[in-house]
Amino acid sequence: MDRVRLEAFSDGVMAVAITLLALNLVLPGPGHGALLEQLKHSWPFFMAYLVSFFTIGNIWVNHHALIRTVAVVDRTLLFLNLLLLFFVVAIPFATATMAEYLGTGGTDSKVAMAIYALVFLGMGLSFSGMVEWTLHEGRRHQEVPKEAIRVIRWRIFFGTSVYILAVVMALISPPIALAIIGLIAVYYVFEHA
Amino acid sequence: MDRVRLEAFSDGVMAVAITLLALNLVLPGPGHGALLEQLKHSWPFFMAYLVSFFTIGNIWVNHHALIRTVAVVDRTLLFLNLLLLFFVVAIPFATATMAEYLGTGGTDSKVAMAIYALVFLGMGLSFSGMVEWTLHEGRRHQEVPKEAIRVIRWRIFFGTSVYILAVVMALISPPIALAIIGLIAVYYVFEHA
Amino acid sequence: MDRVRLEAFSDGVMAVAITLLALNLVLPGPGHGALLEQLKHSWPFFMAYLVSFFTIGNIWVNHHALIRTVAVVDRTLLFLNLLLLFFVVAIPFATATMAEYLGTGGTDSKVAMAIYALVFLGMGLSFSGMVEWTLHEGRRHQEVPKEAIRVIRWRIFFGTSVYILAVVMALISPPIALAIIGLIAVYYVFEHA
Amino acid sequence: MDRVRLEAFSDGVMAVAITLLALNLVLPGPGHGALLEQLKHSWPFFMAYLVSFFTIGNIWVNHHALIRTVAVVDRTLLFLNLLLLFFVVAIPFATATMAEYLGTGGTDSKVAMAIYALVFLGMGLSFSGMVEWTLHEGRRHQEVPKEAIRVIRWRIFFGTSVYILAVVMALISPPIALAIIGLIAVYYVFEHA
Repeated sequence: MDRVRLEAFSDGVMAVAITLLALNLVLPGPGHGALLEQLKHSWPFFMAYLVSFFTIGNIWVNHHALIRTVAVVDRTLLFLNLLLLFFVVAIPFATATMAEYLGTGGTDSKVAMAIYALVFLGMGLSFSGMVEWTLHEGRRHQEVPKEAIRVIRWRIFFGTSVYILAVVMALISPPIALAIIGLIAVYYVFEHA
Repeated sequence: MDRVRLEAFSDGVMAVAITLLALNLVLPGPGHGALLEQLKHSWPFFMAYLVSFFTIGNIWVNHHALIRTVAVVDRTLLFLNLLLLFFVVAIPFATATMAEYLGTGGTDSKVAMAIYALVFLGMGLSFSGMVEWTLHEGRRHQEVPKEAIRVIRWRIFFGTSVYILAVVMALISPPIALAIIGLIAVYYVFEHA
Repeated sequence: MDRVRLEAFSDGVMAVAITLLALNLVLPGPGHGALLEQLKHSWPFFMAYLVSFFTIGNIWVNHHALIRTVAVVDRTLLFLNLLLLFFVVAIPFATATMAEYLGTGGTDSKVAMAIYALVFLGMGLSFSGMVEWTLHEGRRHQEVPKEAIRVIRWRIFFGTSVYILAVVMALISPPIALAIIGLIAVYYVFEHA
Repeated sequence: MDRVRLEAFSDGVMAVAITLLALNLVLPGPGHGALLEQLKHSWPFFMAYLVSFFTIGNIWVNHHALIRTVAVVDRTLLFLNLLLLFFVVAIPFATATMAEYLGTGGTDSKVAMAIYALVFLGMGLSFSGMVEWTLHEGRRHQEVPKEAIRVIRWRIFFGTSVYILAVVMALISPPIALAIIGLIAVYYVFEHA
């Protein structure tokens, strides 16, 4: 019963956040040059929309798969879930800022991409915290075998590492950092858990 | 169980997207001429709101009818559903752009209408992918008889074709393209599946 | 099962629409005079927020009570429900326009209030259509006795009449029209159905 | 059954309100100085986002815990819940106004913080009304023992008092008022009910 409402609230927040991403898709409009030119000039916004959309989509799918295994809900899990949502809700802002600065180059472009990667890292760490919480005895419908725990922890470590790499890369080359984040999204779409 | 959350998330995204459409309904406000004049001048926005609202409404009804038949949910279906939502979320943007350029005429007006029609085509193709997925053995509560499959595939082909026609028409006459998309919406409201 | 998703989607749309109302609550901000002055000057926006919030709240409560009685869901009901939501989604726009023009006086103020009242009338008529649909044999869990039908129809007629009165009053005195709409909201909050 | 939809609508409204908070996170953008400077200058918006996010998060957790205990839903509870949501929906507005004026100092800064605290007080009082409603015989699944009622009422009184203190403090020192509201949020995150 508890689980149902945890899911309902999380679904609601993720659904709103994923839809608000599209509010960043705004063109200058009539009187600001040919529409095709405007579209071409706004490519970072479309690219950013694509990457952020599928990243939120993936976290939703994984959240969904995780919560299904949960047998009990306590205040700690609710708080970790709230922390996860805190970063999810910040994604439209981070996406807009990143897209605005992607084409400008220079330090600002690096800072903007680092913020973008940091929000995803925060989201990843919160999710890792939730996964870790479920690994304790009596919290899942089915106990997880020891080897499976090792695999799960390895995957968490891998995911977190890649986002840390993206943060570091952002300070060197923002486009490569974006490519890394995009590849994570593609990877999780096709990876069969 | 899986199905319930797939529906909840999709309902959430579609509900937000359909409501965000109304954010495009903005008038210049006091000091910009008589209100009735402003309303008259903004007719493309109201027309666009009408067409997009009922198109999202229809996809919701059809999504609803489709998911009801589904017995299992796998990662492929989740991904196809995410792709569908990707286009649904882009509708408010495409609607606003189309409405802004509908009255301007020229190439921009054609490009804007083509984008609008393309988003609906993308939505239609994703939905077709979902329908096709359900036609494989063991994925529906009740097996679909061979003739019924032929009818379903024919309807998918018909719907997709009309949206392709709308994309082509957009490059020739945007108003006719809008009329086609509006007629599809009206057709699906009254068509009893 | 059908009913559950009809409710979920409607709840979603109403929840978003009621929350978007608050987006109209925007003050000029620092550098535009004392904050208390700004608040005083923005009273139509707060008043409008109050009336629209509780009107959507009431329609949600009544929608809720109605759908509970429903035993079957067909395409006609889905369409009537979509029509209801069409007007609900337009409420934030109508509210903002009304609030902007409430203080200006003149024809524009009357037009803005008439639009506001018309959106509520459209909402009321769609809801009446839904109620009427449920009165046919076999559509409710429990058959409605003949006298009860007369009472229900009378209440529909009363509610619709008051909104028509509000539309007419809007063209004569916008503040009185707003008072009528506000009183309907208060009435439905306290009326025990 | 009633309870399920009360929860669904409340979850929807809270999910949208909590996500709309992030719409206030807007930076001036390219051409307005270094991005890090902009971020530093916008600290009140990030601080305000943090406090409001976890306050809504807490009210959701507590709402959730309360509704679980409820055995019946009547019109009074629906209305009290609507009143609660009325204040929740106003939070993004109050948050934005508070953040805009936090750095300006002077009377406006005090007024803005007082409004912020008043919205939370209104939210707290509505929630107290809901709790009080559940304490009457026959409204909870399990009767609450007399001593437990005293504890519950004491906690309500304590929570309300602290928000009243925050309103008063706002008129003396806005930063201290914000600290109080922030501490309430932290307290409720860690407090095990």
